[in-house]
Amino acid sequence: MSNDNYAESELYKIRHSAAHVMAEAVRDLFPEAKLAIGPPIEDGFYYDFDLGKDENGKPRTFSEDDLANIDKRFKQLLKKNAPFNQSSMKVADALEFFKEEPYKVELIEDLVKNEGVEEVGIYQHREFADLCRGPHVPFTKKVRHNAAQVLRTSGAYWRGDENREQLQRIYGTAFESKEDLQAFLEALEEAKERDHRRLGKQLGLFHISALVGSGLILWLPKGAMLRETLEQFMRKAQLDRGYLPVITPHIGSIELYKTSGHYEKYSKDQFPPITLDDDEEYMLKPMNCPHHIAIYDAEPRSYRDLPLRLAEFGTVYRYEKSGQLNGLTRVRGFTVDDSHLFVTPDQLEDEFIGVIELIKHVFTTMGMTDFEARLGVNDPESDKYIGGMDVWARGIAAIEAAAKAANMPYTIDVGEAAFYGPKLDFMVRDVLKREWQLGTIQVDFNLPERFGLEYTGEDGEKHRPIMIHRAPFGSMERFIGVLIEHFNGAFPLWMAPVQVTMVPIADRHIPYAEKVAGELRALGMRVEVDGSSDRMNKKIRNAQLQKIPYMLVVGDSEEEAGQVAVRTRDGGNLGTQDVAAFKLSALEKISTFARDL
Amino acid sequence: MSNDNYAESELYKIRHSAAHVMAEAVRDLFPEAKLAIGPPIEDGFYYDFDLGKDENGKPRTFSEDDLANIDKRFKQLLKKNAPFNQSSMKVADALEFFKEEPYKVELIEDLVKNEGVEEVGIYQHREFADLCRGPHVPFTKKVRHNAAQVLRTSGAYWRGDENREQLQRIYGTAFESKEDLQAFLEALEEAKERDHRRLGKQLGLFHISALVGSGLILWLPKGAMLRETLEQFMRKAQLDRGYLPVITPHIGSIELYKTSGHYEKYSKDQFPPITLDDDEEYMLKPMNCPHHIAIYDAEPRSYRDLPLRLAEFGTVYRYEKSGQLNGLTRVRGFTVDDSHLFVTPDQLEDEFIGVIELIKHVFTTMGMTDFEARLGVNDPESDKYIGGMDVWARGIAAIEAAAKAANMPYTIDVGEAAFYGPKLDFMVRDVLKREWQLGTIQVDFNLPERFGLEYTGEDGEKHRPIMIHRAPFGSMERFIGVLIEHFNGAFPLWMAPVQVTMVPIADRHIPYAEKVAGELRALGMRVEVDGSSDRMNKKIRNAQLQKIPYMLVVGDSEEEAGQVAVRTRDGGNLGTQDVAAFKLSALEKISTFARDL
Repeated sequence: MSNDNYAESELYKIRHSAAHVMAEAVRDLFPEAKLAIGPPIEDGFYYDFDLGKDENGKPRTFSEDDLANIDKRFKQLLKKNAPFNQSSMKVADALEFFKEEPYKVELIEDLVKNEGVEEVGIYQHREFADLCRGPHVPFTKKVRHNAAQVLRTSGAYWRGDENREQLQRIYGTAFESKEDLQAFLEALEEAKERDHRRLGKQLGLFHISALVGSGLILWLPKGAMLRETLEQFMRKAQLDRGYLPVITPHIGSIELYKTSGHYEKYSKDQFPPITLDDDEEYMLKPMNCPHHIAIYDAEPRSYRDLPLRLAEFGTVYRYEKSGQLNGLTRVRGFTVDDSHLFVTPDQLEDEFIGVIELIKHVFTTMGMTDFEARLGVNDPESDKYIGGMDVWARGIAAIEAAAKAANMPYTIDVGEAAFYGPKLDFMVRDVLKREWQLGTIQVDFNLPERFGLEYTGEDGEKHRPIMIHRAPFGSMERFIGVLIEHFNGAFPLWMAPVQVTMVPIADRHIPYAEKVAGELRALGMRVEVDGSSDRMNKKIRNAQLQKIPYMLVVGDSEEEAGQVAVRTRDGGNLGTQDVAAFKLSALEKISTFARDL
Repeated sequence: MSNDNYAESELYKIRHSAAHVMAEAVRDLFPEAKLAIGPPIEDGFYYDFDLGKDENGKPRTFSEDDLANIDKRFKQLLKKNAPFNQSSMKVADALEFFKEEPYKVELIEDLVKNEGVEEVGIYQHREFADLCRGPHVPFTKKVRHNAAQVLRTSGAYWRGDENREQLQRIYGTAFESKEDLQAFLEALEEAKERDHRRLGKQLGLFHISALVGSGLILWLPKGAMLRETLEQFMRKAQLDRGYLPVITPHIGSIELYKTSGHYEKYSKDQFPPITLDDDEEYMLKPMNCPHHIAIYDAEPRSYRDLPLRLAEFGTVYRYEKSGQLNGLTRVRGFTVDDSHLFVTPDQLEDEFIGVIELIKHVFTTMGMTDFEARLGVNDPESDKYIGGMDVWARGIAAIEAAAKAANMPYTIDVGEAAFYGPKLDFMVRDVLKREWQLGTIQVDFNLPERFGLEYTGEDGEKHRPIMIHRAPFGSMERFIGVLIEHFNGAFPLWMAPVQVTMVPIADRHIPYAEKVAGELRALGMRVEVDGSSDRMNKKIRNAQLQKIPYMLVVGDSEEEAGQVAVRTRDGGNLGTQDVAAFKLSALEKISTFARDL
């Protein structure tokens, strides 16, 4: 969703007003609740409350029953009309007025301290008055009771600071129409259904074990197969484009990261060093670039070696607070389909075009056809960027020329460059229209300088190469998390961890099922045989729950005729086919990365 | 080389005596040298000397010129005959006799302290007398001057203790005949030529960077390609045998390793823990087993899930002192072609047979046909083994039955089992007849117990699975180090990082060379085009130095006829062939893992 003008929209006012009415409902039911803040947000609004402590000294929370009651009261209050009245109050009066509300008092005191205000704004409807700048709808009924809904509750810290009071947040939403709310709730339900954590468990893709550690993904066999399939696809795409594979270790001496600058710039986002007795220190690698630079630097380079495109599926480790971890999308260890291109200034534009072309190829093959690019450039006002303005201008010009040549539309984000150079990020919309930042291409003038990289030019002189960092998938973990939700777990045939389940109707058909399975496997297909004692329909249902593309049912007549009865995971019945015909059609779908069965 | 009876052999006496004569030569030339010890070793002998300090306070060393002079004097002394006389000396007399030799004094004092001796043995020839138990040859001429040789020098610590004096070691060797010495020196030269560190650099396979860290391998593009080819071969072999891929992180919480027992048992061999602020501790994983166990334990298991064969190319990190590191064969990070099989007791033997069969398949395909197995069993006298004697007996019986069924000869090594179960190690001889311990299979009763692993049996009761640990390659790094030396860098076609170099005779033939290269690449072959300005013969020589299997020379006549002129790396000229014919013959060699071109 684009945020353009949202803050000035009618919807924003509706949601802001709904937050007040929901807080009114909470105060009706929990008169002791202290009010914190209640802003509109992208998909609705929230309000934070302090309910005091329970008998164990823990913050009291809202139960599911409480939420239901609040939702009921919220809707009752919406039906009873009342105007929103705006007024101003002198600071001293406001402090007296809100004296029972410590969070409002703190907010007022901060307004005085930071903005030097003498009066504060108040919005009131019925008896509910809130410290607020608005805007609001004119009267509460403008928030339609059948287009608003209390959604869920969660913990939150006052001012987002984990050292401050722990509050109870209630999320709700409101729309202009009942239909909009319905569409939103359905999308929410769909997203829940598609949640990669839920599907990851159901489909046996990955597991996180408390004993191994938070944010560390254990890829189960089917997930590992999916990941290896994607890596093979990328490996092939890269080999075809002259990339060279390398493999580097997952640790490096601290000196390496001091030279690269990562140690200083990112130390809070890294795992702490490993210190050996003799004062050697190592870091888990947070990035692959310094290792690839060490490979560039392993021998003297000449212009004939460039462009040098080093590629690795490099697993890196970064420290994220455990509260921020989430399934595959926020993790502590992830594998980047990383590559570093070492190029001469003359090669920059062409190489950039090549990378854009590769990324378009990747997204299109993955069935992600709705994407756009954002060009992050330096903010000329800021001093956080290194390198001269002329170098930046040349880099940006090369990217813009490349994007145009590659027919890749982009928008420009000032101040969104990396500190070491401009970048092009790829924003992909999934089928739920959610936007993800996936691939990225960055131009780097900094690391070649820090490591003193050189090549001998045609002129016999030493020159400095430019680096391009690029990762079409980005993180394999995060990308697969998005893919799972995008496809709702029903991956295209070429990608599916198991492509075919053989369904023998009776035990006597198992040998024939195994024979067909063996023939398909010899073609490189991934096939399971359901030799259980379940009945045929149960076997088909089980395979459908696992979202396996094809079920091949075999009984007496199929065996006799050398055929299979082909069913699909979406309930389709493609009838009885010769085994050879099925093979051909499946192989064709696999080799063309077909999305449909 | 087998050490059986070496200590009682004539060769042992010859070498021991040669050590004395070489020390005599050193004393002739360096009268100030203090004598330490000089034993026979596997391929010869050494003697350690203390030459005092130089003007900077550093230990003085032998130069190459010194070594040449010593060798000359050594051979002169061997030609002058003199008897070896044995005698005994009272401790007090010996201390007086050796009073100028502090190392001998220390040895005598230790003999008194540790063994309570009252007399010590002395061997003397001419004026050179040494503290020595013998045995020696009767007179010096029994060491033939043309069958003995000073080899090299290196530093050494007194008693191998890096806190004690630093000494200068001279290695030499002696054989019974001139021919034996010649054969040895040739093998030594051959081994030097084949040294994987030398070839690794020459062929661009791997690099070790001081800035990244000691013992950490950077796989350069050609090495990475070789490694990926081997991994793909293994991946396929495993998929064919019902193994399931998994991928796990390179770190794990310290609790995981405390549960597994690795933390306690192996803490000195591991990198120290990574400690986070909130007292979470992580270890770089020294083994993959605990992670695979976490995957087994990710869901309730039934007998229907077994055998469960989880496979991963898992990179592990272990701490080795920097002095012990050596190229690819002793490293701090290495990748194990690891698998853990979770089996019922009934399945143990069959699964073990399957693993032996896989390992034989692997070694044979690699062209390593000279291997045998060693069954490491527990020592009934020792208390270091866990688990009851009956469990051990059952495990050993299963392995023996499996080895017999798989037609795999083995010898039994008492006391060579892992503490947790018996194992079968595979000893492979390379073309230089050197023996390497490569693959291993281990039976484990311990970890399933420590982690409380269970499965529900057909009887509905809970049972404990047995684990098999296995790795046919062992460490990818070490295995490739051995492979490089085994093949002298001239890998079989299927394995070669670059399989074909296109050699256009003139620049105008480059487009045709590129066209043929493209066709070969489309078949999955790895092809380079030498588009340099070098002449044809230079191009061929360069490709031969890189040990690239085929050079395809193309000029006017080849282009016109759609042909290529095929040369091989060993100087062979296979004449002019149609491109289609070359393709067919190369593909056949690749698909059959042929060793010859």
